[in-house]
Amino acid sequence: MAPRSAASLRSRLAPLLLFLQLGFIVMYALFTEIQSKVSVDGETFANVYPEFQDVNVIVTLGFGFLGTFLVRYGFSASVFSLLVAVMATQWAMLLNGIESYRGKIRLDVHSLVDAEMCTASVLISMGAVLGKTNPVQLILISLLGVSGFVLNKWVLQTLLKVQVLKSIMMLHIFGAFFGLMLAWILYRKGSEQQFEKEKFDHKTGLFSMLGTVFLWMFWPSFNSVLVDDGTPGRKLGVVCSTYLALAVSAVTAAAVSVLSSPKGKLNLIHMQSCILAGGVAVGVSMSVIHQPWEAMTIGFTAAVASSIGHRYLKIHMLLAFQCHDTCAVLSTYGLPGLLGWLAHLLLQIKNLDDHTTAIRFAVFHICSLLITITLSMSMGIITGLLIKWNFWRPPQNKKYFDDQAYWEFPNLAKGK
Amino acid sequence: MAPRSAASLRSRLAPLLLFLQLGFIVMYALFTEIQSKVSVDGETFANVYPEFQDVNVIVTLGFGFLGTFLVRYGFSASVFSLLVAVMATQWAMLLNGIESYRGKIRLDVHSLVDAEMCTASVLISMGAVLGKTNPVQLILISLLGVSGFVLNKWVLQTLLKVQVLKSIMMLHIFGAFFGLMLAWILYRKGSEQQFEKEKFDHKTGLFSMLGTVFLWMFWPSFNSVLVDDGTPGRKLGVVCSTYLALAVSAVTAAAVSVLSSPKGKLNLIHMQSCILAGGVAVGVSMSVIHQPWEAMTIGFTAAVASSIGHRYLKIHMLLAFQCHDTCAVLSTYGLPGLLGWLAHLLLQIKNLDDHTTAIRFAVFHICSLLITITLSMSMGIITGLLIKWNFWRPPQNKKYFDDQAYWEFPNLAKGK
Amino acid sequence: MAPRSAASLRSRLAPLLLFLQLGFIVMYALFTEIQSKVSVDGETFANVYPEFQDVNVIVTLGFGFLGTFLVRYGFSASVFSLLVAVMATQWAMLLNGIESYRGKIRLDVHSLVDAEMCTASVLISMGAVLGKTNPVQLILISLLGVSGFVLNKWVLQTLLKVQVLKSIMMLHIFGAFFGLMLAWILYRKGSEQQFEKEKFDHKTGLFSMLGTVFLWMFWPSFNSVLVDDGTPGRKLGVVCSTYLALAVSAVTAAAVSVLSSPKGKLNLIHMQSCILAGGVAVGVSMSVIHQPWEAMTIGFTAAVASSIGHRYLKIHMLLAFQCHDTCAVLSTYGLPGLLGWLAHLLLQIKNLDDHTTAIRFAVFHICSLLITITLSMSMGIITGLLIKWNFWRPPQNKKYFDDQAYWEFPNLAKGK
Repeated sequence: MAPRSAASLRSRLAPLLLFLQLGFIVMYALFTEIQSKVSVDGETFANVYPEFQDVNVIVTLGFGFLGTFLVRYGFSASVFSLLVAVMATQWAMLLNGIESYRGKIRLDVHSLVDAEMCTASVLISMGAVLGKTNPVQLILISLLGVSGFVLNKWVLQTLLKVQVLKSIMMLHIFGAFFGLMLAWILYRKGSEQQFEKEKFDHKTGLFSMLGTVFLWMFWPSFNSVLVDDGTPGRKLGVVCSTYLALAVSAVTAAAVSVLSSPKGKLNLIHMQSCILAGGVAVGVSMSVIHQPWEAMTIGFTAAVASSIGHRYLKIHMLLAFQCHDTCAVLSTYGLPGLLGWLAHLLLQIKNLDDHTTAIRFAVFHICSLLITITLSMSMGIITGLLIKWNFWRPPQNKKYFDDQAYWEFPNLAKGK
Repeated sequence: MAPRSAASLRSRLAPLLLFLQLGFIVMYALFTEIQSKVSVDGETFANVYPEFQDVNVIVTLGFGFLGTFLVRYGFSASVFSLLVAVMATQWAMLLNGIESYRGKIRLDVHSLVDAEMCTASVLISMGAVLGKTNPVQLILISLLGVSGFVLNKWVLQTLLKVQVLKSIMMLHIFGAFFGLMLAWILYRKGSEQQFEKEKFDHKTGLFSMLGTVFLWMFWPSFNSVLVDDGTPGRKLGVVCSTYLALAVSAVTAAAVSVLSSPKGKLNLIHMQSCILAGGVAVGVSMSVIHQPWEAMTIGFTAAVASSIGHRYLKIHMLLAFQCHDTCAVLSTYGLPGLLGWLAHLLLQIKNLDDHTTAIRFAVFHICSLLITITLSMSMGIITGLLIKWNFWRPPQNKKYFDDQAYWEFPNLAKGK
Repeated sequence: MAPRSAASLRSRLAPLLLFLQLGFIVMYALFTEIQSKVSVDGETFANVYPEFQDVNVIVTLGFGFLGTFLVRYGFSASVFSLLVAVMATQWAMLLNGIESYRGKIRLDVHSLVDAEMCTASVLISMGAVLGKTNPVQLILISLLGVSGFVLNKWVLQTLLKVQVLKSIMMLHIFGAFFGLMLAWILYRKGSEQQFEKEKFDHKTGLFSMLGTVFLWMFWPSFNSVLVDDGTPGRKLGVVCSTYLALAVSAVTAAAVSVLSSPKGKLNLIHMQSCILAGGVAVGVSMSVIHQPWEAMTIGFTAAVASSIGHRYLKIHMLLAFQCHDTCAVLSTYGLPGLLGWLAHLLLQIKNLDDHTTAIRFAVFHICSLLITITLSMSMGIITGLLIKWNFWRPPQNKKYFDDQAYWEFPNLAKGK
């Protein structure tokens, strides 16, 4: 079947990429300009640039190397996620600019940061279908996923008057449910036996550990980047909360991993996902966290939920719902995101004296979750049905989790 | 013996981690709060956060990947060092806060930085026993090591009125001697033949090279982070000195490695440790370094001492003192630390015109070293005796340097 | 032949390194001092240090790991590039200081940044001869290359009054042509059959991907670091332009890689080089880029040129000119650099209303390119002839691309 697969990449991927990229260049030429005046007083390069760089590291390196644990899929995991990231970021910058559009969309480093936050939601989704999709499908997922996320953000901000920060932090929940629906739609009978390629070895485990460590280290940046620069104390507070939650998650993930293993051993891939749970949960609920113990308790609960999800939910999802979630995004981002949402609700209500305000807040908060889940699942189903189309030449079952289908290995040829 | 080892992790590690983590959460709830007001005028997010992030990279990634050269111990080296780091940091933040305790310990990013400096000393110690301890023992080492280091810091600052910066920079010496005592106490007859697993290959050598490069690149941050923000010129001077010392160390380590090799070849593991020697030595002596050539000479001497130590001292320590030092922390941190201490003494005395002051300084300086060494060695012996207890189920000789005892490898099972 | 090779390293490398390093220490002692006063008002640690650190990451980690794809040459690629980097940086700081020399050269973090930019040009050249030179030769290349580059910078700035920024950004073109000449001079008949070791595998491909990703992520820092701090808006504009050009390059490189492959597959090593093309081209032309689409078009063109160069030029260079360019530096840095130069010319002329000024600018611009190419090629030929000398014991053909000649592998010995 080699020729078919070869043809698929050449006649589908290259035209699609060139068409989209040239289209983007034309759209950028017509609608954008670089903002080269600094808009806010006192804003300097040193204030803004490191924040962009940290988010860039998370998006490019962190998410890019997270998927490299797949023993025969490392090249694809790292390069395809870079492709998805740059397509999604270019598209998100245009979409984010539409609202404030007056003559030209003005791009600056803040636009890049906002766009990369949207990109993160797509990279989360990509985890659910990693190894079971070809790059053409991934590019389509990236465009439709970003569109859905920006739509969701717009709905929350415009209809429900949700704060910008909170609407963007829905990215974990959006990404997880969007990806889950993709995985569910794309599931094919008889593909289970191919999942035996879905394994890791001593070296690839370390590569994905590297990606994880970068996510873990820079997660405080990811959570604090959208907090208003005018309140440095608040921003530093978010950094402390996130660090503490991540620290607690790491310890808890190890404990639960050992407890839930039949032989009392640790599992590297489980741990890699679960040590991030605290960061995700605090990200969703950070605007109401004021005490260290709150962040730590959220981190503890999130890691427990995530670890148990990893151990039992992933296999259950496969058997009961026929939904194969490669990187277990439901447990890694979905559950901690929902937990963070719940923590936000409880802490906010606890702080409000007035019953009426509390109930009003609860209704709004629940609505924003329901809208996010509904939009993410429906966009996921639509996208899944579109990319299932044979026109995109989806990989055969036996090509799952395998670089061979997409990459030249010229080392086997003599003389390179 | 698999069941015994399995039981050991489940019935010891999980309860210990959960107990400690829940205990920390309770203590943080009772005694701490997040400092969300910025205390110093003119301090902004951009001034503080990148410094924390650099130290965080050193502690999490640098030390974490330094130990991954062990060919069958990569998962353990990277994950256990993360666990040790987060436990030690949580504990150090509490201990550091006791002194200034009034009602509540106020946590901010500076507390995180201080705590991570203490953590670095434990991660250095961990290098001496890497691969020969189980995670339960490592957790105990992290708590006792941090306690000892904070005690030492307190003694130096309170009794001898040593500057904060200098007392913290004793971390290299403290860590090395603490670790050495652990390795000495834990030594078991007949374990030498297991050390054949203590090797590296083409790929694991590159992983630990990666950790080394991160340490090397961010060492200027590590040295400059504690210098007072009010003197940016001084801080930048420390950065230059550290860079120069590190550069000289890299060149010197290569030269000595070739000279001392029977076949005139380089040794990757030796070089990885010795290129850091200049950074360690400058860290200990930085407050008196004012000229580039001083930093470079210190870097040169430290690299020579460290390289020779690596080549001859490690094997001598094993044969003569029955002390097996996995990562050669004596040569990597101990000798350069002592050299830095000596350089400090000489440069300071040279600068002082007055004999009386010079002698007084020398006495104080020697006392601070003796106290540090005494405290680190006695804490090391106490900790070593405690963790040697069979209750903690220390690994058998044949399980040394082997991930198999602690990690699931589910890829061998079908369908994951 | 083992003894000969062994002797070569011991009797050549160690004395050379020690002699040069001690020489540097003496020169630094005589001619330099650390600038510990902050010179410019309002300049703080947080403004300057992160910029140095980003460039340091590019030079140390990015270029260091870029060459690790060679399956049996990873240790050498990463460590030798570190050695080259620190020698070149120490030498460049001295050379850069000569001009402003009055009594003492004052070193600060800006000197480090400038020196590391010069170092980058040597690391690019090193890519052309990677695996075919011993470390002694590489050290000589680093010193002579930096001397040539500083000379070129001085000629451009003094004779042609080229701006500092533009003269430094010639580093890509200088490095590529210097390296190319080295590779041409060093070519030996009959070495082709040894090039079969010049291959990558699943793991080493990921290591070099890691280096690439770091270059890709921090390239905006590399381009913006020399832009005047007084114009933060301009600096942030360069960041945006560079990011967009890099994003477009990534997409375009994938498309062209698939189109030009006989089987319609991607090639990892080609892509790794070509995704950087946009950053190189924008670096050379950044002072005239004001619109996003300009940056994106430059990124697109550079990636197309670079990808086609990779696919066809490398093998053509070998067969027609007997010039074996290991990392294809001509396509990776040379062609995009020339394209950026051309884009600069065209955009500048477009902006100038006056014909006379436009022609004058064109003449100057062409002269600066010709001077750079002439100087780089003649320095390359001189250096090549010097290092071809048998006194330096160049590696035999069969030792090409092999760590074995330079590194101990003590793991094969029992008990380490």
